[in-house]
Amino acid sequence: MPNVWIAGAGMTRVGRRSEPLGDLMADAAHAALAAAGRERPDFIIVATMNPEEFVGDGNFASNIATYMGFAETPALRVETATSSGAAALYAGVAQVAASLHRTVLVVGGEKMTHLPTPRVSEIIGRSIDPYERAYGATMPALAGLVTRALMARRGVGVREIAQVAVKNHANAARNPYAHFQKPVTLDEVMESRMVADPLRLLHCCPISDGAAAVVLTAERSAVRVAGIGQGADALAVRHRADVTHFRATRDAARAAFAMAGFGPARVDFAEIHDAFAPFELISLEDLGLVPPGKAGRATLDGETALDGRLPVNPSGGLKGRGHPLAATGLAQVVECVWQLTGRGGERQVSGKVALAHSIGGLATNNWVTIVEAER
Amino acid sequence: MPNVWIAGAGMTRVGRRSEPLGDLMADAAHAALAAAGRERPDFIIVATMNPEEFVGDGNFASNIATYMGFAETPALRVETATSSGAAALYAGVAQVAASLHRTVLVVGGEKMTHLPTPRVSEIIGRSIDPYERAYGATMPALAGLVTRALMARRGVGVREIAQVAVKNHANAARNPYAHFQKPVTLDEVMESRMVADPLRLLHCCPISDGAAAVVLTAERSAVRVAGIGQGADALAVRHRADVTHFRATRDAARAAFAMAGFGPARVDFAEIHDAFAPFELISLEDLGLVPPGKAGRATLDGETALDGRLPVNPSGGLKGRGHPLAATGLAQVVECVWQLTGRGGERQVSGKVALAHSIGGLATNNWVTIVEAER
Repeated sequence: MPNVWIAGAGMTRVGRRSEPLGDLMADAAHAALAAAGRERPDFIIVATMNPEEFVGDGNFASNIATYMGFAETPALRVETATSSGAAALYAGVAQVAASLHRTVLVVGGEKMTHLPTPRVSEIIGRSIDPYERAYGATMPALAGLVTRALMARRGVGVREIAQVAVKNHANAARNPYAHFQKPVTLDEVMESRMVADPLRLLHCCPISDGAAAVVLTAERSAVRVAGIGQGADALAVRHRADVTHFRATRDAARAAFAMAGFGPARVDFAEIHDAFAPFELISLEDLGLVPPGKAGRATLDGETALDGRLPVNPSGGLKGRGHPLAATGLAQVVECVWQLTGRGGERQVSGKVALAHSIGGLATNNWVTIVEAER
Repeated sequence: MPNVWIAGAGMTRVGRRSEPLGDLMADAAHAALAAAGRERPDFIIVATMNPEEFVGDGNFASNIATYMGFAETPALRVETATSSGAAALYAGVAQVAASLHRTVLVVGGEKMTHLPTPRVSEIIGRSIDPYERAYGATMPALAGLVTRALMARRGVGVREIAQVAVKNHANAARNPYAHFQKPVTLDEVMESRMVADPLRLLHCCPISDGAAAVVLTAERSAVRVAGIGQGADALAVRHRADVTHFRATRDAARAAFAMAGFGPARVDFAEIHDAFAPFELISLEDLGLVPPGKAGRATLDGETALDGRLPVNPSGGLKGRGHPLAATGLAQVVECVWQLTGRGGERQVSGKVALAHSIGGLATNNWVTIVEAER
């Protein structure tokens, strides 16, 4: 594949936002264009998970292109549930690699906090297999089931899981774009109210609004998309051979590293999909960043902390920065670009190669993106 | 751009279908794969306009990939309202052209007829600018406004408009895949009940269920994607300089012909987005297939009939074949492939170059695809 570069990246602060979704997405897009030094894109890819039900509007590529002042610029929308931002990035990479367009704006966003939580949960729940949903399965319920299996079959402990949340909150407290700005202690996590046994409130990402964007180009820039790959798995969790790892992550990583032409040992830091804290432990191993069975120990030992061997979720992750669904896969890449170009502020880490990992649904449609600083 | 070929095409009969959407899409996909002589794709692009509200399911790329037996094959969803099928084709072309995948299945479908018509109208209406929607604008209402302008400013007559419906019903009556299987007369069209003055029932496409699919490949096959292009316009109809032509169609045609390296004179037949009969007249001129001001006369004179100089909508079009939203852009291409390879049955036309034209929303996001038979 020809080289595809990230010429600019931008995002909004994530959190409970009062602006309409169009404002958030336009802000992120214009920030990315400004960072790229471009007046306008020649193509726009829009990622939103479900604007029809979250905000009542469809035809959303045209809606957002018009809203941000680019009504006459071709635009389409890409969706793979909670990993839509990463999928949109992939679609953009394909267009630039195919020489169809030179400057592609990829922008993702979601607005949810204006709705009652049960309604948000119902809308997100449409990602679950209809049969399992009919029996009352929700995302936290299925994640709780995965976590129970992880503890029973692979010996992962409650302190290891809780430490993920402690680390990611600590990172978020250094990130002005994060939903949560305060650290939490291990005791606070382990004593927070139960959501879906054994998952407690502070193991789970918040419901967040926000938007993120990148500008892709065929022209040499500071950061390159070295690899991007997708993995898929059966919609129904009951049809999986093993729920203590995610096949979709493993396949995505294999595809992304194959494209990059190197392996996990070259990764200096990572943004990982920790919608539920134990998912960070599962994913560290699925991605090959930590040996099998060692993710919990590595986390307790500080290997994945900001000053560790392999900083994970310097942004605060979904847990701390927040999880505005279709924005998340792009917000991860924005963080990687900022870190690689020395704009990590109080949470700056070092390195030349970063990995972003995004989960769609209950790990049905996952993406791995590897970005590399120009040497 | 490297050559991208259509190795196989398939679709369901369009109409009021009792099967679930997954069945329809799987049927179309497996028909396209069988026609292509392939066991399985290595990537799937899914087009649906709004499965969350039409059928209650999200994460639809994973849903459909699992449903059709390809749970572990990477899949993403593309959406541009009523032109989603054409947009998905474009995304597939980009992936093959970028050498990311060798065999890409593109499948679109929609299921609507199980819902009450006012609910369907509400869901489709999310494609309209929110401000105009707040004043009661529906798709037929806006199309009525466009038609009034067309009649007042460009002298198009009611017989010319009605003849589009007569022609397309006649073609549909020869197409076993079409929603409508009966011809209608000019009098029947002009006396059918008023929907949105001056548009009558038989000027408007029906609410249809159905699915269509193509298999794209980098390997030489019988039909090639010669050109594909998109055009966009402001979401709000009130922000357009002129509503008697569609800027988005003109820009899409310009891009598609530029990629093809030839002009409209080379087109032998076309599938055109006639969700409302007058849109066929507008589009014929926007596409450059008929000189400005001549579309009505050409239609009355039989130039666009099955045995005319330039057969338009041999399938029956959206009017006669039906308009299962995200399936439509692909169903048009399926018809072009079938015609180019001599599988047009009772409605066979001759030619080597075919054009498909798809409108998203009220002409906010339009696509033109040019396919060419291998010589």
